[in-house]
Amino acid sequence: MPSETKLRVRYAETDKMGIVHHAVYPVWFEAARGDYVRKEGIGYDAIEASGFMIPLHDLTCTYLKPFVYEEEVTVVTRIVKTNAVRLVFAYEVYGEGDTLPRVMGTTTHAWVHTSDFRMANLKKEYPKLYSLLQACYERDKDYS
Amino acid sequence: MPSETKLRVRYAETDKMGIVHHAVYPVWFEAARGDYVRKEGIGYDAIEASGFMIPLHDLTCTYLKPFVYEEEVTVVTRIVKTNAVRLVFAYEVYGEGDTLPRVMGTTTHAWVHTSDFRMANLKKEYPKLYSLLQACYERDKDYS
Amino acid sequence: MPSETKLRVRYAETDKMGIVHHAVYPVWFEAARGDYVRKEGIGYDAIEASGFMIPLHDLTCTYLKPFVYEEEVTVVTRIVKTNAVRLVFAYEVYGEGDTLPRVMGTTTHAWVHTSDFRMANLKKEYPKLYSLLQACYERDKDYS
Amino acid sequence: MPSETKLRVRYAETDKMGIVHHAVYPVWFEAARGDYVRKEGIGYDAIEASGFMIPLHDLTCTYLKPFVYEEEVTVVTRIVKTNAVRLVFAYEVYGEGDTLPRVMGTTTHAWVHTSDFRMANLKKEYPKLYSLLQACYERDKDYS
Repeated sequence: MPSETKLRVRYAETDKMGIVHHAVYPVWFEAARGDYVRKEGIGYDAIEASGFMIPLHDLTCTYLKPFVYEEEVTVVTRIVKTNAVRLVFAYEVYGEGDTLPRVMGTTTHAWVHTSDFRMANLKKEYPKLYSLLQACYERDKDYS
Repeated sequence: MPSETKLRVRYAETDKMGIVHHAVYPVWFEAARGDYVRKEGIGYDAIEASGFMIPLHDLTCTYLKPFVYEEEVTVVTRIVKTNAVRLVFAYEVYGEGDTLPRVMGTTTHAWVHTSDFRMANLKKEYPKLYSLLQACYERDKDYS
Repeated sequence: MPSETKLRVRYAETDKMGIVHHAVYPVWFEAARGDYVRKEGIGYDAIEASGFMIPLHDLTCTYLKPFVYEEEVTVVTRIVKTNAVRLVFAYEVYGEGDTLPRVMGTTTHAWVHTSDFRMANLKKEYPKLYSLLQACYERDKDYS
Repeated sequence: MPSETKLRVRYAETDKMGIVHHAVYPVWFEAARGDYVRKEGIGYDAIEASGFMIPLHDLTCTYLKPFVYEEEVTVVTRIVKTNAVRLVFAYEVYGEGDTLPRVMGTTTHAWVHTSDFRMANLKKEYPKLYSLLQACYERDKDYS
Protein backbone atom coordinates (compact mmCIF):
# COMPACT_ATOMS: atom_id res chain seq x y z
CA MET A 1 0.00 0.00 0.00
CA PRO A 2 1.29 3.50 -0.71
CA SER A 3 2.25 5.78 2.15
CA GLU A 4 -0.58 7.69 3.82
CA THR A 5 -0.26 10.79 5.97
CA LYS A 6 -3.08 12.10 8.14
CA LEU A 7 -3.36 15.80 8.92
CA ARG A 8 -6.01 18.12 10.28
CA VAL A 9 -6.61 21.52 8.67
CA ARG A 10 -5.26 24.32 10.89
CA TYR A 11 -7.02 27.65 11.26
CA ALA A 12 -3.84 29.43 10.16
CA GLU A 13 -3.97 27.42 6.92
CA THR A 14 -7.27 29.01 5.86
CA ASP A 15 -7.59 32.32 4.03
CA LYS A 16 -10.29 34.98 3.68
CA MET A 17 -11.98 32.85 1.01
CA GLY A 18 -12.76 30.49 3.90
CA ILE A 19 -10.76 27.63 2.41
CA VAL A 20 -7.28 26.20 2.75
CA HIS A 21 -4.82 28.57 1.07
CA HIS A 22 -3.26 27.06 -2.05
CA ALA A 23 0.32 27.55 -0.81
CA VAL A 24 -0.41 25.16 2.07
CA TYR A 25 -0.56 22.04 -0.13
CA PRO A 26 3.18 22.06 -0.94
CA VAL A 27 3.76 22.07 2.83
CA TRP A 28 1.46 19.07 3.24
CA PHE A 29 3.19 17.34 0.34
CA GLU A 30 6.47 17.87 2.14
CA ALA A 31 5.14 16.48 5.42
CA ALA A 32 3.82 13.46 3.48
CA ARG A 33 7.17 13.02 1.70
CA GLY A 34 8.93 13.16 5.07
CA ASP A 35 6.62 10.43 6.37
CA TYR A 36 7.30 8.37 3.27
CA VAL A 37 11.07 8.34 3.63
CA ARG A 38 10.83 7.92 7.40
CA LYS A 39 8.71 4.78 6.94
CA GLU A 40 11.41 3.45 4.61
CA GLY A 41 13.84 3.81 7.47
CA ILE A 42 15.82 6.74 6.14
CA GLY A 43 14.71 10.18 7.31
CA TYR A 44 15.52 13.48 5.67
CA ASP A 45 17.92 14.21 8.47
CA ALA A 46 19.81 10.97 7.87
CA ILE A 47 19.99 11.75 4.16
CA GLU A 48 21.34 15.23 4.87
CA ALA A 49 23.81 13.80 7.38
CA SER A 50 25.05 11.47 4.61
CA GLY A 51 25.90 14.56 2.57
CA PHE A 52 22.93 14.70 0.21
CA MET A 53 19.90 16.92 -0.16
CA ILE A 54 17.01 16.86 -2.60
CA PRO A 55 15.85 20.44 -3.12
CA LEU A 56 12.84 20.86 -5.36
CA HIS A 57 13.35 21.38 -9.02
CA ASP A 58 9.72 21.42 -10.00
CA LEU A 59 6.31 21.58 -8.34
CA THR A 60 2.87 21.08 -9.85
CA CYS A 61 -0.43 21.26 -8.06
CA THR A 62 -3.99 20.91 -9.31
CA TYR A 63 -6.88 22.10 -7.15
CA LEU A 64 -10.20 20.40 -7.81
CA LYS A 65 -12.13 21.00 -4.59
CA PRO A 66 -11.20 23.00 -1.52
CA PHE A 67 -10.69 21.87 2.07
CA VAL A 68 -12.05 23.84 4.99
CA TYR A 69 -11.04 24.31 8.61
CA GLU A 70 -10.85 21.26 10.85
CA GLU A 71 -11.28 18.68 8.11
CA GLU A 72 -9.26 15.49 8.36
CA VAL A 73 -6.94 15.18 5.41
CA THR A 74 -5.21 12.12 3.98
CA VAL A 75 -2.25 12.58 1.66
CA VAL A 76 -1.36 9.50 -0.41
CA THR A 77 2.23 9.62 -1.61
CA ARG A 78 3.98 7.61 -4.32
CA ILE A 79 7.36 7.63 -6.00
CA VAL A 80 6.54 7.86 -9.70
CA LYS A 81 10.06 8.27 -11.07
CA THR A 82 13.54 7.69 -9.73
CA ASN A 83 16.94 7.62 -11.38
CA ALA A 84 20.54 8.54 -10.60
CA VAL A 85 19.89 12.29 -10.53
CA ARG A 86 16.15 12.81 -10.06
CA LEU A 87 13.30 11.71 -7.83
CA VAL A 88 9.63 12.42 -8.50
CA PHE A 89 6.86 12.08 -5.93
CA ALA A 90 3.13 12.24 -6.69
CA TYR A 91 0.51 13.21 -4.11
CA GLU A 92 -3.24 12.82 -3.85
CA VAL A 93 -5.11 14.67 -1.13
CA TYR A 94 -8.38 13.18 0.10
CA GLY A 95 -11.00 14.35 2.56
CA GLU A 96 -12.97 11.97 4.73
CA GLY A 97 -15.13 9.66 2.66
CA ASP A 98 -13.74 10.97 -0.63
CA THR A 99 -13.29 8.48 -3.43
CA LEU A 100 -11.56 11.02 -5.64
CA PRO A 101 -8.70 13.31 -4.62
CA ARG A 102 -9.49 17.00 -4.17
CA VAL A 103 -5.95 18.12 -4.83
CA MET A 104 -3.15 16.39 -6.74
CA GLY A 105 0.45 17.32 -7.18
CA THR A 106 3.98 16.30 -8.03
CA THR A 107 7.39 17.37 -6.82
CA THR A 108 10.55 16.75 -8.82
CA HIS A 109 13.78 16.73 -6.86
CA ALA A 110 17.39 16.82 -7.94
CA TRP A 111 20.09 15.16 -5.84
CA VAL A 112 22.77 17.61 -4.71
CA HIS A 113 25.66 17.60 -2.23
CA THR A 114 24.95 19.26 1.10
CA SER A 115 28.36 20.90 1.11
CA ASP A 116 28.14 22.90 -2.10
CA PHE A 117 24.75 22.26 -3.79
CA ARG A 118 26.56 20.53 -6.69
CA MET A 119 24.56 17.86 -8.57
CA ALA A 120 25.05 14.36 -7.20
CA ASN A 121 24.81 10.97 -8.89
CA LEU A 122 22.96 8.82 -6.37
CA LYS A 123 23.57 5.57 -8.23
CA LYS A 124 27.32 6.02 -7.90
CA GLU A 125 27.61 7.97 -4.69
CA TYR A 126 24.93 6.39 -2.50
CA PRO A 127 23.95 3.09 -4.18
CA LYS A 128 22.12 1.76 -1.13
CA LEU A 129 19.65 4.64 -1.14
CA TYR A 130 19.40 4.45 -4.92
CA SER A 131 18.33 0.78 -4.70
CA LEU A 132 15.90 1.44 -1.92
CA LEU A 133 14.15 4.11 -4.00
CA GLN A 134 14.00 1.78 -7.00
CA ALA A 135 12.26 -0.80 -4.84
CA CYS A 136 9.82 1.85 -3.56
CA TYR A 137 9.03 2.85 -7.11
CA GLU A 138 8.36 -0.74 -8.17
CA ARG A 139 6.02 -1.25 -5.23
CA ASP A 140 4.17 2.05 -5.64
CA LYS A 141 3.68 1.43 -9.37
CA ASP A 142 1.29 -1.39 -8.65
CA TYR A 143 -1.00 0.93 -6.71
CA SER A 144 -1.38 3.82 -9.09
CA MET B 1 6.39 47.09 -19.36
CA PRO B 2 5.10 44.11 -17.39
CA SER B 3 4.21 44.48 -13.74
CA GLU B 4 7.10 44.27 -11.27
CA THR B 5 6.86 43.58 -7.56
CA LYS B 6 9.76 44.14 -5.16
CA LEU B 7 10.09 42.04 -2.01
CA ARG B 8 12.79 41.33 0.52
CA VAL B 9 13.38 37.76 1.75
CA ARG B 10 12.10 37.34 5.32
CA TYR B 11 13.91 35.21 7.88
CA ALA B 12 10.72 33.19 8.41
CA GLU B 13 10.76 32.35 4.71
CA THR B 14 14.06 30.44 4.97
CA ASP B 15 14.36 26.81 6.01
CA LYS B 16 17.08 24.65 7.55
CA MET B 17 18.69 24.25 4.13
CA GLY B 18 19.51 27.97 4.52
CA ILE B 19 17.46 28.96 1.47
CA VAL B 20 13.96 30.26 0.81
CA HIS B 21 11.48 27.42 1.32
CA HIS B 22 9.83 26.32 -1.92
CA ALA B 23 6.29 26.88 -0.62
CA VAL B 24 7.07 30.60 -0.25
CA TYR B 25 7.12 31.26 -4.00
CA PRO B 26 3.37 30.71 -4.49
CA VAL B 27 2.88 33.38 -1.79
CA TRP B 28 5.17 35.78 -3.64
CA PHE B 29 3.35 34.98 -6.89
CA GLU B 30 0.11 35.91 -5.17
CA ALA B 31 1.51 39.18 -3.83
CA ALA B 32 2.76 39.96 -7.36
CA ARG B 33 -0.64 39.06 -8.85
CA GLY B 34 -2.32 41.34 -6.32
CA ASP B 35 -0.01 44.18 -7.36
CA TYR B 36 -0.78 43.47 -11.01
CA VAL B 37 -4.55 43.78 -10.67
CA ARG B 38 -4.22 46.74 -8.29
CA LYS B 39 -2.14 48.62 -10.87
CA GLU B 40 -4.90 47.96 -13.39
CA GLY B 41 -7.26 49.75 -11.05
CA ILE B 42 -9.24 46.72 -9.91
CA GLY B 43 -8.05 45.10 -6.68
CA TYR B 44 -8.86 41.59 -5.52
CA ASP B 45 -11.21 43.07 -2.96
CA ALA B 46 -13.14 44.97 -5.61
CA ILE B 47 -13.40 41.81 -7.70
CA GLU B 48 -14.70 39.84 -4.73
CA ALA B 49 -17.13 42.66 -3.88
CA SER B 50 -18.46 42.38 -7.45
CA GLY B 51 -19.32 38.76 -6.73
CA PHE B 52 -16.41 36.97 -8.39
CA MET B 53 -13.37 35.11 -7.15
CA ILE B 54 -10.54 33.42 -8.99
CA PRO B 55 -9.37 30.48 -6.90
CA LEU B 56 -6.39 28.58 -8.26
CA HIS B 57 -6.99 25.64 -10.49
CA ASP B 58 -3.36 24.89 -11.22
CA LEU B 59 0.06 25.90 -10.04
CA THR B 60 3.45 25.17 -11.53
CA CYS B 61 6.80 26.27 -10.21
CA THR B 62 10.34 25.60 -11.43
CA TYR B 63 13.28 26.26 -9.13
CA LEU B 64 16.58 26.98 -10.87
CA LYS B 65 18.59 28.78 -8.21
CA PRO B 66 17.76 29.53 -4.58
CA PHE B 67 17.30 32.84 -2.80
CA VAL B 68 18.78 33.49 0.63
CA TYR B 69 17.85 35.70 3.56
CA GLU B 70 17.68 39.46 3.03
CA GLU B 71 18.02 39.35 -0.74
CA GLU B 72 15.96 41.82 -2.76
CA VAL B 73 13.57 40.00 -5.03
CA THR B 74 11.78 41.17 -8.16
CA VAL B 75 8.77 39.25 -9.41
CA VAL B 76 7.80 40.01 -13.02
CA THR B 77 4.18 39.12 -13.72
CA ARG B 78 2.37 38.65 -17.02
CA ILE B 79 -1.06 37.50 -18.12
CA VAL B 80 -0.31 34.74 -20.61
CA LYS B 81 -3.86 33.52 -21.23
CA THR B 82 -7.33 34.90 -20.58
CA ASN B 83 -10.76 33.83 -21.74
CA ALA B 84 -14.33 33.75 -20.45
CA VAL B 85 -13.65 31.13 -17.79
CA ARG B 86 -9.90 31.06 -17.17
CA LEU B 87 -7.01 33.37 -16.42
CA VAL B 88 -3.34 32.36 -16.48
CA PHE B 89 -0.52 34.38 -14.95
CA ALA B 90 3.19 33.69 -15.47
CA TYR B 91 5.88 34.79 -13.03
CA GLU B 92 9.63 35.21 -13.19
CA VAL B 93 11.58 35.79 -10.01
CA TYR B 94 14.87 37.67 -10.24
CA GLY B 95 17.55 38.54 -7.72
CA GLU B 96 19.55 41.76 -7.89
CA GLY B 97 21.64 41.93 -11.03
CA ASP B 98 20.20 38.70 -12.43
CA THR B 99 19.65 38.52 -16.17
CA LEU B 100 17.89 35.16 -15.91
CA PRO B 101 15.08 34.26 -13.52
CA ARG B 102 15.92 31.94 -10.63
CA VAL B 103 12.36 30.73 -10.24
CA MET B 104 9.52 30.65 -12.74
CA GLY B 105 5.90 29.72 -12.33
CA THR B 106 2.35 29.87 -13.57
CA THR B 107 -1.02 30.00 -11.88
CA THR B 108 -4.23 29.05 -13.66
CA HIS B 109 -7.40 30.49 -12.20
CA ALA B 110 -11.04 29.70 -12.83
CA TRP B 111 -13.70 32.37 -12.43
CA VAL B 112 -16.34 31.45 -9.84
CA HIS B 113 -19.17 33.23 -8.03
CA THR B 114 -18.34 34.39 -4.52
CA SER B 115 -21.75 33.26 -3.28
CA ASP B 116 -21.57 29.57 -4.16
CA PHE B 117 -18.24 28.81 -5.88
CA ARG B 118 -20.14 28.01 -9.14
CA MET B 119 -18.21 28.58 -12.39
CA ALA B 120 -18.71 32.05 -13.85
CA ASN B 121 -18.52 33.28 -17.44
CA LEU B 122 -16.65 36.55 -17.20
CA LYS B 123 -17.32 37.57 -20.78
CA LYS B 124 -21.07 37.52 -20.16
CA GLU B 125 -21.25 38.39 -16.50
CA TYR B 126 -18.54 41.01 -16.11
CA PRO B 127 -17.63 42.17 -19.64
CA LYS B 128 -15.75 45.24 -18.43
CA LEU B 129 -13.26 43.16 -16.48
CA TYR B 130 -13.09 40.66 -19.31
CA SER B 131 -12.06 43.40 -21.75
CA LEU B 132 -9.54 44.87 -19.35
CA LEU B 133 -7.83 41.49 -19.01
CA GLN B 134 -7.77 41.04 -22.78
CA ALA B 135 -5.99 44.39 -23.09
CA CYS B 136 -3.51 43.36 -20.40
CA TYR B 137 -2.80 40.15 -22.23
CA GLU B 138 -2.16 41.96 -25.51
CA ARG B 139 0.21 44.37 -23.85
CA ASP B 140 2.11 41.71 -21.86
CA LYS B 141 2.51 39.55 -24.96
CA ASP B 142 4.89 42.04 -26.48
CA TYR B 143 7.24 41.75 -23.51
CA SER B 144 7.58 38.00 -23.19
CA MET C 1 -5.89 15.06 32.42
CA PRO C 2 -5.35 18.21 30.41
CA SER C 3 -5.69 18.14 26.64
CA GLU C 4 -2.68 16.92 24.69
CA THR C 5 -1.95 17.49 21.01
CA LYS C 6 0.71 15.58 19.08
CA LEU C 7 2.46 17.17 16.12
CA ARG C 8 5.56 16.46 14.09
CA VAL C 9 7.91 19.31 13.13
CA ARG C 10 7.56 20.12 9.41
CA TYR C 11 10.53 21.09 7.26
CA ALA C 12 8.75 24.32 6.30
CA GLU C 13 8.57 25.20 9.99
CA THR C 14 12.36 25.38 10.33
CA ASP C 15 14.45 28.43 9.50
CA LYS C 16 18.06 29.06 8.50
CA MET C 17 19.11 28.80 12.16
CA GLY C 18 18.19 25.12 11.77
CA ILE C 19 15.44 25.28 14.39
CA VAL C 20 11.67 25.76 14.44
CA HIS C 21 10.90 29.39 13.64
CA HIS C 22 9.43 31.25 16.61
CA ALA C 23 6.29 32.31 14.73
CA VAL C 24 5.33 28.63 14.36
CA TYR C 25 4.48 28.17 18.04
CA PRO C 26 1.36 30.39 17.93
CA VAL C 27 0.16 28.14 15.08
CA TRP C 28 0.76 25.04 17.20
CA PHE C 29 -1.00 26.70 20.12
CA GLU C 30 -3.97 27.28 17.86
CA ALA C 31 -4.02 23.67 16.65
CA ALA C 32 -3.87 22.56 20.29
CA ARG C 33 -6.66 24.98 21.24
CA GLY C 34 -8.77 23.61 18.39
CA ASP C 35 -8.21 20.08 19.68
CA TYR C 36 -9.14 21.21 23.17
CA VAL C 37 -12.52 22.64 22.23
CA ARG C 38 -13.20 19.78 19.80
CA LYS C 39 -12.67 17.24 22.61
CA GLU C 40 -15.19 19.21 24.66
CA GLY C 41 -17.69 18.62 21.91
CA ILE C 42 -17.85 22.15 20.59
CA GLY C 43 -15.55 22.93 17.66
CA TYR C 44 -14.46 26.36 16.53
CA ASP C 45 -16.76 26.00 13.55
CA ALA C 46 -19.76 25.31 15.78
CA ILE C 47 -18.89 28.33 17.92
CA GLU C 48 -18.64 30.55 14.84
CA ALA C 49 -21.90 29.11 13.51
CA SER C 50 -23.52 30.12 16.83
CA GLY C 51 -22.52 33.70 16.11
CA PHE C 52 -19.43 34.02 18.29
CA MET C 53 -15.72 34.24 17.66
CA ILE C 54 -12.76 34.53 20.00
CA PRO C 55 -10.06 36.52 18.24
CA LEU C 56 -6.83 36.90 20.15
CA HIS C 57 -6.36 39.87 22.36
CA ASP C 58 -2.98 38.92 23.70
CA LEU C 59 -0.24 36.40 23.04
CA THR C 60 2.82 35.55 25.10
CA CYS C 61 5.47 33.01 24.30
CA THR C 62 8.67 32.04 26.09
CA TYR C 63 11.31 30.02 24.29
CA LEU C 64 13.59 27.95 26.49
CA LYS C 65 14.95 25.32 24.13
CA PRO C 66 14.47 24.90 20.38
CA PHE C 67 12.84 22.07 18.43
CA VAL C 68 14.39 20.71 15.26
CA TYR C 69 13.04 19.05 12.14
CA GLU C 70 11.10 15.80 12.50
CA GLU C 71 10.83 15.88 16.28
CA GLU C 72 7.59 14.71 17.82
CA VAL C 73 5.96 17.50 19.75
CA THR C 74 3.34 17.40 22.50
CA VAL C 75 1.39 20.54 23.32
CA VAL C 76 -0.39 20.44 26.69
CA THR C 77 -3.27 22.92 26.83
CA ARG C 78 -5.17 24.30 29.80
CA ILE C 79 -7.82 26.93 30.38
CA VAL C 80 -6.32 29.15 33.05
CA LYS C 81 -8.97 31.88 33.12
CA THR C 82 -12.52 32.20 31.89
CA ASN C 83 -15.22 34.76 32.51
CA ALA C 84 -18.11 36.40 30.65
CA VAL C 85 -15.87 38.32 28.26
CA ARG C 86 -12.45 36.67 28.25
CA LEU C 87 -10.88 33.25 27.90
CA VAL C 88 -7.22 32.48 28.59
CA PHE C 89 -5.42 29.33 27.47
CA ALA C 90 -1.94 28.27 28.61
CA TYR C 91 0.30 25.97 26.59
CA GLU C 92 3.36 23.89 27.35
CA VAL C 93 5.32 22.36 24.49
CA TYR C 94 7.30 19.18 25.19
CA GLY C 95 9.66 17.09 23.10
CA GLU C 96 9.93 13.34 23.48
CA GLY C 97 11.17 12.35 26.90
CA ASP C 98 11.14 15.93 28.17
CA THR C 99 10.14 16.51 31.77
CA LEU C 100 10.18 20.28 31.38
CA PRO C 101 8.51 22.26 28.59
CA ARG C 102 10.77 23.82 25.98
CA VAL C 103 8.29 26.50 25.06
CA MET C 104 5.43 27.99 27.07
CA GLY C 105 2.75 30.43 26.09
CA THR C 106 -0.62 31.97 26.73
CA THR C 107 -3.36 33.33 24.53
CA THR C 108 -6.02 35.70 25.79
CA HIS C 109 -9.21 35.82 23.78
CA ALA C 110 -12.14 38.21 23.83
CA TRP C 111 -15.62 37.04 22.90
CA VAL C 112 -17.09 38.96 19.97
CA HIS C 113 -20.07 38.61 17.64
CA THR C 114 -19.30 37.06 14.26
CA SER C 115 -21.55 39.57 12.54
CA ASP C 116 -19.88 42.81 13.58
CA PHE C 117 -16.89 42.04 15.87
CA ARG C 118 -18.74 43.72 18.79
CA MET C 119 -17.82 42.47 22.27
CA ALA C 120 -20.07 39.67 23.50
CA ASN C 121 -21.07 38.64 27.02
CA LEU C 122 -20.88 34.86 26.97
CA LYS C 123 -22.52 34.41 30.34
CA LYS C 124 -25.67 36.14 29.12
CA GLU C 125 -25.63 35.31 25.45
CA TYR C 126 -24.39 31.72 25.40
CA PRO C 127 -24.70 30.39 28.98
CA LYS C 128 -24.27 26.76 27.97
CA LEU C 129 -20.81 27.40 26.54
CA TYR C 130 -19.98 29.67 29.46
CA SER C 131 -20.74 26.84 31.92
CA LEU C 132 -18.82 24.29 29.91
CA LEU C 133 -15.72 26.51 29.99
CA GLN C 134 -16.09 27.03 33.74
CA ALA C 135 -16.11 23.27 34.19
CA CYS C 136 -13.03 22.92 31.99
CA TYR C 137 -11.24 25.54 34.04
CA GLU C 138 -12.04 23.77 37.31
CA ARG C 139 -10.78 20.47 35.95
CA ASP C 140 -7.59 21.89 34.41
CA LYS C 141 -6.77 23.77 37.62
CA ASP C 142 -6.07 20.53 39.40
CA TYR C 143 -3.39 19.60 36.89
CA SER C 144 -1.31 22.75 36.79
CA MET D 1 13.12 59.07 14.13
CA PRO D 2 12.54 55.40 14.91
CA SER D 3 12.82 52.80 12.16
CA GLU D 4 9.73 52.32 9.99
CA THR D 5 8.96 49.34 7.80
CA LYS D 6 6.23 49.37 5.15
CA LEU D 7 4.42 46.18 4.20
CA ARG D 8 1.27 45.27 2.33
CA VAL D 9 -1.06 42.59 3.68
CA ARG D 10 -0.79 39.40 1.62
CA TYR D 11 -3.78 37.22 0.82
CA ALA D 12 -2.00 34.23 2.36
CA GLU D 13 -1.73 36.21 5.61
CA THR D 14 -5.51 36.35 6.05
CA ASP D 15 -7.59 33.61 7.66
CA LYS D 16 -11.21 32.50 7.47
CA MET D 17 -12.16 35.27 9.92
CA GLY D 18 -11.30 37.61 7.04
CA ILE D 19 -8.50 39.30 8.95
CA VAL D 20 -4.73 38.96 9.24
CA HIS D 21 -3.94 35.81 11.20
CA HIS D 22 -2.39 36.56 14.58
CA ALA D 23 0.72 34.45 13.92
CA VAL D 24 1.64 36.79 11.05
CA TYR D 25 2.56 39.70 13.32
CA PRO D 26 5.70 38.02 14.73
CA VAL D 27 6.82 37.60 11.11
CA TRP D 28 6.23 41.31 10.45
CA PHE D 29 8.07 42.18 13.66
CA GLU D 30 11.00 40.14 12.39
CA ALA D 31 10.98 41.85 9.00
CA ALA D 32 10.90 45.21 10.81
CA ARG D 33 13.73 44.15 13.11
CA GLY D 34 15.76 43.09 10.07
CA ASP D 35 15.19 46.52 8.53
CA TYR D 36 16.21 48.16 11.78
CA VAL D 37 19.59 46.46 12.03
CA ARG D 38 20.20 46.80 8.29
CA LYS D 39 19.68 50.57 8.52
CA GLU D 40 22.26 50.62 11.30
CA GLY D 41 24.69 49.10 8.87
CA ILE D 42 24.88 45.65 10.39
CA GLY D 43 22.53 43.04 8.91
CA TYR D 44 21.46 39.81 10.53
CA ASP D 45 23.71 37.96 8.13
CA ALA D 46 26.73 40.01 9.15
CA ILE D 47 25.95 39.37 12.82
CA GLU D 48 25.65 35.62 12.19
CA ALA D 49 28.88 35.68 10.16
CA SER D 50 30.57 37.30 13.20
CA GLY D 51 29.60 34.24 15.22
CA PHE D 52 26.55 35.57 17.06
CA MET D 53 22.81 34.99 16.85
CA ILE D 54 19.92 36.44 18.78
CA PRO D 55 17.20 33.81 18.98
CA LEU D 56 14.00 34.88 20.70
CA HIS D 57 13.62 34.33 24.38
CA ASP D 58 10.25 35.98 24.74
CA LEU D 59 7.47 37.32 22.56
CA THR D 60 4.44 39.40 23.50
CA CYS D 61 1.77 40.67 21.20
CA THR D 62 -1.40 42.66 21.86
CA TYR D 63 -4.11 42.84 19.22
CA LEU D 64 -6.35 45.89 19.39
CA LYS D 65 -7.80 46.10 15.90
CA PRO D 66 -7.40 43.78 12.93
CA PHE D 67 -5.85 44.39 9.53
CA VAL D 68 -7.48 43.16 6.34
CA TYR D 69 -6.22 42.12 2.93
CA GLU D 70 -4.30 44.68 0.86
CA GLU D 71 -3.95 47.26 3.59
CA GLU D 72 -0.69 49.16 3.80
CA VAL D 73 1.01 48.51 7.09
CA THR D 74 3.68 50.49 8.91
CA VAL D 75 5.69 48.82 11.65
CA VAL D 76 7.54 51.24 13.95
CA THR D 77 10.44 49.55 15.71
CA ARG D 78 12.43 50.66 18.74
CA ILE D 79 15.10 49.17 20.95
CA VAL D 80 13.69 49.49 24.45
CA LYS D 81 16.37 47.58 26.35
CA THR D 82 19.91 46.45 25.62
CA ASN D 83 22.64 45.05 27.81
CA ALA D 84 25.51 42.56 27.58
CA VAL D 85 23.25 39.52 27.26
CA ARG D 86 19.80 40.73 26.18
CA LEU D 87 18.17 42.90 23.57
CA VAL D 88 14.52 43.96 23.59
CA PHE D 89 12.67 45.43 20.63
CA ALA D 90 9.20 47.01 20.78
CA TYR D 91 6.90 47.24 17.76
CA GLU D 92 3.84 49.28 16.91
CA VAL D 93 1.80 48.39 13.85
CA TYR D 94 -0.19 51.15 12.18
CA GLY D 95 -2.62 51.20 9.27
CA GLU D 96 -2.92 54.13 6.90
CA GLY D 97 -4.11 57.25 8.68
CA ASP D 98 -4.00 55.59 12.10
CA THR D 99 -2.92 57.72 15.04
CA LEU D 100 -2.93 54.75 17.40
CA PRO D 101 -1.30 51.36 16.78
CA ARG D 102 -3.60 48.43 16.05
CA VAL D 103 -1.10 45.86 17.23
CA MET D 104 1.81 46.19 19.63
CA GLY D 105 4.49 43.75 20.62
CA THR D 106 7.89 43.07 22.07
CA THR D 107 10.59 40.53 21.40
CA THR D 108 13.31 39.71 23.89
CA HIS D 109 16.45 38.20 22.47
CA ALA D 110 19.42 36.52 24.13
CA TRP D 111 22.86 36.68 22.54
CA VAL D 112 24.29 33.25 21.77
CA HIS D 113 27.22 31.85 19.80
CA THR D 114 26.37 30.58 16.34
CA SER D 115 28.63 27.57 16.81
CA ASP D 116 27.00 26.01 19.85
CA PHE D 117 24.06 28.18 21.00
CA ARG D 118 25.97 29.02 24.23
CA MET D 119 25.12 32.37 25.86
CA ALA D 120 27.35 35.20 24.72
CA ASN D 121 28.42 38.41 26.48
CA LEU D 122 28.17 41.06 23.80
CA LYS D 123 29.89 43.74 25.83
CA LYS D 124 33.04 41.63 26.11
CA GLU D 125 32.91 39.64 22.91
CA TYR D 126 31.63 42.17 20.39
CA PRO D 127 31.99 45.63 22.00
CA LYS D 128 31.50 47.51 18.75
CA LEU D 129 28.02 46.07 18.25
CA TYR D 130 27.28 46.51 21.95
CA SER D 131 28.06 50.25 21.70
CA LEU D 132 26.05 50.64 18.52
CA LEU D 133 22.98 49.14 20.20
CA GLN D 134 23.43 51.42 23.23
CA ALA D 135 23.41 54.41 20.90
CA CYS D 136 20.29 53.11 19.16
CA TYR D 137 18.57 52.72 22.49
CA GLU D 138 19.43 56.27 23.57
CA ARG D 139 18.11 57.67 20.31
CA ASP D 140 14.90 55.58 20.29
CA LYS D 141 14.18 56.52 23.91
CA ASP D 142 13.48 60.07 22.90
CA TYR D 143 10.74 59.01 20.53
CA SER D 144 8.71 56.70 22.72
